[in-house]
Amino acid sequence: MSKADSAKNTATGWSADVRELLRVGPGFDLTAVDPDSAPGFELGKRGGTAEGAEELARNAQELNDLQERLFANSRYGGTRSLLLIVQAMDTAGKGGIVEHVVGEISPEGLSVYAFKKPTPEELEHDFLWRVRRRTPAAGMVGVFDRSHYEDVLIGRVRALAPAEQIEQRYGQILEFERELVAAGTTIVKVMLHISADEQKKRLADRLDRPDKVWKYNPSDVDERALWPQYQQAYQLALERTSTTDAPWFVVPANHKWYARIAVQQLLLGALRGLDLQWPAVDFDVGAEKTRLATSNPAG
Amino acid sequence: MSKADSAKNTATGWSADVRELLRVGPGFDLTAVDPDSAPGFELGKRGGTAEGAEELARNAQELNDLQERLFANSRYGGTRSLLLIVQAMDTAGKGGIVEHVVGEISPEGLSVYAFKKPTPEELEHDFLWRVRRRTPAAGMVGVFDRSHYEDVLIGRVRALAPAEQIEQRYGQILEFERELVAAGTTIVKVMLHISADEQKKRLADRLDRPDKVWKYNPSDVDERALWPQYQQAYQLALERTSTTDAPWFVVPANHKWYARIAVQQLLLGALRGLDLQWPAVDFDVGAEKTRLATSNPAG
Repeated sequence: MSKADSAKNTATGWSADVRELLRVGPGFDLTAVDPDSAPGFELGKRGGTAEGAEELARNAQELNDLQERLFANSRYGGTRSLLLIVQAMDTAGKGGIVEHVVGEISPEGLSVYAFKKPTPEELEHDFLWRVRRRTPAAGMVGVFDRSHYEDVLIGRVRALAPAEQIEQRYGQILEFERELVAAGTTIVKVMLHISADEQKKRLADRLDRPDKVWKYNPSDVDERALWPQYQQAYQLALERTSTTDAPWFVVPANHKWYARIAVQQLLLGALRGLDLQWPAVDFDVGAEKTRLATSNPAG
Repeated sequence: MSKADSAKNTATGWSADVRELLRVGPGFDLTAVDPDSAPGFELGKRGGTAEGAEELARNAQELNDLQERLFANSRYGGTRSLLLIVQAMDTAGKGGIVEHVVGEISPEGLSVYAFKKPTPEELEHDFLWRVRRRTPAAGMVGVFDRSHYEDVLIGRVRALAPAEQIEQRYGQILEFERELVAAGTTIVKVMLHISADEQKKRLADRLDRPDKVWKYNPSDVDERALWPQYQQAYQLALERTSTTDAPWFVVPANHKWYARIAVQQLLLGALRGLDLQWPAVDFDVGAEKTRLATSNPAG
């Protein structure tokens, strides 16, 4: 959305369901997604950052409440959980999503895991082994900061396994996610989509700031040199693994404020879709009130 | 602090170092701690809740920033971590501490674990086995919601192991925590101290509220009947395991707002004490700026 466009709008808020706007469906083309855009969000006059922060704050409590309902149900046999998978090029804002969106949920309802370069032990197993160990328990919101998709992204671009093995992985991923869904997990897969120019700015910013330079890794520039190859690998992964039950959403992320409110909407939509009620308890509330009233241990 | 006392104060804020006021030292007597008190915090005229929320918000960013420095250092070989252990009678507010105090830290810097009744597999091992598996990695803030102390609390009150075995556990705990400290972990142990009357109110509230009743467990009243025995078990654990390197703090918790700001101060104090600087990087920043400037993958 250009500045001219945003200046025309006076209303602030969602004009359409972001899940429909960002979902990867048949014929999807990553090169057609503008990383600078803000689909579905009508901007006011303040440029986005302020509106985004307000929107984020407005929905934070609902997100936390829905997770609490999810957890409450798990105490009474509910098997539902939510898994957010976040993939992106370096500096696209994965950490910000975790801190500012997911971070609104109480830590006891969260299981966040950042997948790094596989350890020697992990490499001795199938690529899904380490991932299966980190799937969320019933009642939890799990977050994967990177995931098994690395094995068809950097795995493909850097040829970290034989080509035919990498080809097989797409099917293995579909099967794995089908299992998770069948066991009660709602899966939301997000690619934060930035432009190469925006990445350059953000890496330069890291190099300039004493409080950010530790995040910089010289290998970031090596990977950056393979930008087109990574975009192709993303395109393949997105078109092959976006299913009805475990869809991909490509979130324009040059504007951090937009990426955050969009992911928040995706999480809210997924949780609202579960129609979570407080569970019916398995004891007699009236009888417990009486027991409690007559318990005076310290007296 | 009575209402009369608080009305006298016009200033708001800490009048003393809460770490000194709440630390369990020689001659400590749990029965002398008033669960209704708010040691060291000068109340304004609004009764506490509002002042507490403001105080919490005021320090949230610093807490998150200090954790980020801890994490940054771990990327460059730093071995420091922080472990907050929270113990309390039911309803004392452990969940609120995790949500409202610890929750201000980004989830990727946190490892929170709620210890439940041991599983059959856990029972096949030494009582510290499951605890060792959950200690925080370098750079992380770990939180134990309940802990190995259960094995000298409910373990003692309910005689879940032979008496002599339970006696041995205090020494084993001291040894275990000494190891953790030697490996770089700063340990902060907190008992949230509520009164039996306050617990009764809170349990009654749970029974009255459709959104809270799922948290109630009939066994809560059974444990409540053993209140004096639990207080004695706490007294023993506190006096035997509060050390210079891994001190206990007893936090009056009838006022939730006070317990939260007090625990926040304990965490801030522990992290400030580490004197965390941003790490020196191991690459040539100038050379990286040049490499980055000439990288134009998408052009």
